[in-house]
Amino acid sequence: MKYSVEQIDEIICAYLPEEDGFAKPVIQAMNYAFKAGGKRVRPMLMKLTYDMFYERERESVLAAFMAAIEMIHTYSLIHDDLPALDNDELRRGKPTVHVKFGEDIAILAGDGLLNYAFEIVSKTMLHSPGSVAIERALAMLCEKPGISGMIGGQTLDVVMTGKPVNDMQLEYIYLNKTAALLSCAVTIGATLGGATEAQVSLLRDAANSIGMAFQVQDDILDVIGSEEVIGKPIHSDTRNEKTTYVTIHGMEASKQYVIEQTERAEQLISKLDVDNAKAKKDLSDYIHTLINRDK
Amino acid sequence: MKYSVEQIDEIICAYLPEEDGFAKPVIQAMNYAFKAGGKRVRPMLMKLTYDMFYERERESVLAAFMAAIEMIHTYSLIHDDLPALDNDELRRGKPTVHVKFGEDIAILAGDGLLNYAFEIVSKTMLHSPGSVAIERALAMLCEKPGISGMIGGQTLDVVMTGKPVNDMQLEYIYLNKTAALLSCAVTIGATLGGATEAQVSLLRDAANSIGMAFQVQDDILDVIGSEEVIGKPIHSDTRNEKTTYVTIHGMEASKQYVIEQTERAEQLISKLDVDNAKAKKDLSDYIHTLINRDK
Repeated sequence: MKYSVEQIDEIICAYLPEEDGFAKPVIQAMNYAFKAGGKRVRPMLMKLTYDMFYERERESVLAAFMAAIEMIHTYSLIHDDLPALDNDELRRGKPTVHVKFGEDIAILAGDGLLNYAFEIVSKTMLHSPGSVAIERALAMLCEKPGISGMIGGQTLDVVMTGKPVNDMQLEYIYLNKTAALLSCAVTIGATLGGATEAQVSLLRDAANSIGMAFQVQDDILDVIGSEEVIGKPIHSDTRNEKTTYVTIHGMEASKQYVIEQTERAEQLISKLDVDNAKAKKDLSDYIHTLINRDK
Repeated sequence: MKYSVEQIDEIICAYLPEEDGFAKPVIQAMNYAFKAGGKRVRPMLMKLTYDMFYERERESVLAAFMAAIEMIHTYSLIHDDLPALDNDELRRGKPTVHVKFGEDIAILAGDGLLNYAFEIVSKTMLHSPGSVAIERALAMLCEKPGISGMIGGQTLDVVMTGKPVNDMQLEYIYLNKTAALLSCAVTIGATLGGATEAQVSLLRDAANSIGMAFQVQDDILDVIGSEEVIGKPIHSDTRNEKTTYVTIHGMEASKQYVIEQTERAEQLISKLDVDNAKAKKDLSDYIHTLINRDK
């Protein structure tokens, strides 16, 4: 891989707030959740997409957006884990934020991370005033995590808990709860890199296929994978009687769907007219690794 | 008063999302909380401040910021009312969001409003691309509600619940939990109106005094006011054994403090070199009404 998770971590952790002052209890909880690890998929995708284009002056702006999108992802995990939602006590083998810091601080820490994501990006914007590319990237960062994206997906997921989910509803949940932030990462990387609107649009389309393939592969691995590969307990969907792509369409059709969506994303990306063939291959390689959970 | 609450409502409610699609359950909860009423203090202050300056091309941009700051205020109320925080079941005589829609939807509705505030403002920005004044106003909107502002104040308030609060801690809570958003409203109004940096800075200072006076007056009215004037049950601080400005400094010093801070704000505003004397008086009149809870 072009970048290690450690390299991405170094870039994004530089944006975490200092743990001091009267707000220290909430900042500690925010940083605890952020530093708990993970594959850093969203900032990684953002950087690999950016690298395909030519604009090299925006490296520091890009870094702020990489940190911001990971903060938004992290806030969504903190709130998702709360007793009123998924009621999870462990995440990546560590106590979840509300278990460690209390439910009140966990709610505020989630709010704090969502707000801080926009704070660091808006401050970066002031260092390059009047840049329409940065304004566009910011608008993307504000839209996809919201009610017409991630929060929309979470809402339907919450509302449908314990009820039969149909095909259309499942697609909405996957597209919004999972694919929206991946697509957000890719389109921001492209926009800051100086891509044309047509290129951004093509990459948004590809990212939706990546998101769908990633999520359906998750469903497949929950049935036939090992805890080691998937990084969390398997058979959780069966235990929770959850409707998944596999329960609706069956295992073979699900595997076929992942292959198709991955190929579709590949083909879209291969159509991109960019000079940097190496960067394009790096992105493709990462997408394969991501969907197949290769180490 | 120059504007009625109904006039402000008409401006800001136009920005609420449509209640349709799969995200409808969360959007209904967001709009329920937003439409529950209130004095619309923050958008009112923003508009009255804006009116003192000259830039009239940004009326529609201002309207989006007015809606956004009220959405941020509303999200903070939804999350504050949750069982893990204040556990309030009524607000302005109506069931709180988690009582009416469930705790899961209430958490998502708070997140949704905070995120949507930035979404509408960032979209407005794309209609006037490259405007440094709008970028600055956006950075203010992203900073003050966060960990170095409102969330910081809420954090200390939560952490100190049931413990003795000292003078410095109480001032931090008031300045951040209450004054930060008022000051945010005023500085955004000034910035969009075309004020100079010195004018913005002077108004920020004045707004902090307004916020402190408003909050200490709240403490006073909790002791000597009537439910009708203050719009909520009185003697709640005594019941909750809460440290307030009155319990630390006594009633007379508290009344004196409100007078001093109000006069300080007045004097700062009177120093402003703006042509529109009528608009300046409108702002001063509103501040008096606000602090004294006049009808």
